[in-house]
Amino acid sequence: MIHETIVTTAARDGRPHVAPMGARYEGDFVVLAPFRPSTTLDNIVASHAAVLNFTTDVRIFAGCITHRATDWPTVAASRVASVRLAASLAHAELELDHIDGTDNNAERPVLWMKCVHRENHAPFAGFNRAQAAVVEGAILVSRLFMLPADKVDREMAYLQIAIDKTAGDHERTAWSWLVAAVERHRAGSAVDGPTAARAPH
Amino acid sequence: MIHETIVTTAARDGRPHVAPMGARYEGDFVVLAPFRPSTTLDNIVASHAAVLNFTTDVRIFAGCITHRATDWPTVAASRVASVRLAASLAHAELELDHIDGTDNNAERPVLWMKCVHRENHAPFAGFNRAQAAVVEGAILVSRLFMLPADKVDREMAYLQIAIDKTAGDHERTAWSWLVAAVERHRAGSAVDGPTAARAPH
Repeated sequence: MIHETIVTTAARDGRPHVAPMGARYEGDFVVLAPFRPSTTLDNIVASHAAVLNFTTDVRIFAGCITHRATDWPTVAASRVASVRLAASLAHAELELDHIDGTDNNAERPVLWMKCVHRENHAPFAGFNRAQAAVVEGAILVSRLFMLPADKVDREMAYLQIAIDKTAGDHERTAWSWLVAAVERHRAGSAVDGPTAARAPH
Repeated sequence: MIHETIVTTAARDGRPHVAPMGARYEGDFVVLAPFRPSTTLDNIVASHAAVLNFTTDVRIFAGCITHRATDWPTVAASRVASVRLAASLAHAELELDHIDGTDNNAERPVLWMKCVHRENHAPFAGFNRAQAAVVEGAILVSRLFMLPADKVDREMAYLQIAIDKTAGDHERTAWSWLVAAVERHRAGSAVDGPTAARAPH
């Protein structure tokens, strides 16, 4: 089972990093598999720590994926050498157990982490279809370089329905960032061709 | 903004009722708009109370919509004349303020409720794409009587991707109930024609 979370880490100098990432549970482990190059990977290798933030603020997902807003407020974690989001519904603090794939420079090393501390901050407010649509849209936008335009258009049109019917202000903001990123990608592709379009990712 | 929640109510004789329902927030009010006939509506008119249960157990959504499993464990609410789900991440207890549309027998009366009590039971674990897919699939299944078969097939196929990639056991169970409901609906339509197919809703 994979959950879409916000992973926060800290560099050696304390600089925070915020990144949307899927987290898989395998027995006692939380498994993260960031694609290289990855600041999250570098920070976890250096600090042996990370935090999974469980938030429904979808602006963070869309803001990071589109590079529109990546500087979300963080505070020090309670038990590990990392930061956590200042605002989330709950978080889990993780320590690195071991890594598969660093020695052979795998494109996607696998980080096996153990949860050493959890905090519950605020109640879940129920499913919101627009939030789920933003999460799906953010995944689409992260794969624009490899997806046919008509598939992107079809899926964005489908997701737009849930935005129109159920979104609040945060979801509309997040969705507008995703829509703008698709337009920007196409403008870039038209000028520079498909190879250059991959650069921002 | 609309959240997809599980509304629990109690009849005069104490019998619990569990129903998936969208909840809209308008200022200080929580607004519910059940379609008649509705046990939830009858119970709220009688008791002036309801509970919004915030759960990520999507079996409850799919189980109620497909009539496969409607008998989820409940316990008495803390402050209102209702029940709540025994297991949820959080819940909000509501009292009825006023109703629009009962006098003229509107198909969809609007219940204006006030939250008088909240409890936070367990931490949110992050977005899961399969859970969102089940919620979308449950909405599709609730509208089978009015949707063209090819639209249902196309959207179920799209949602299946998130199930295959990110589901846990509960999500797979819930999805299997939805898939079976689509098959059952088609078998019924083929035998009885489109009018009879509406009967279960």
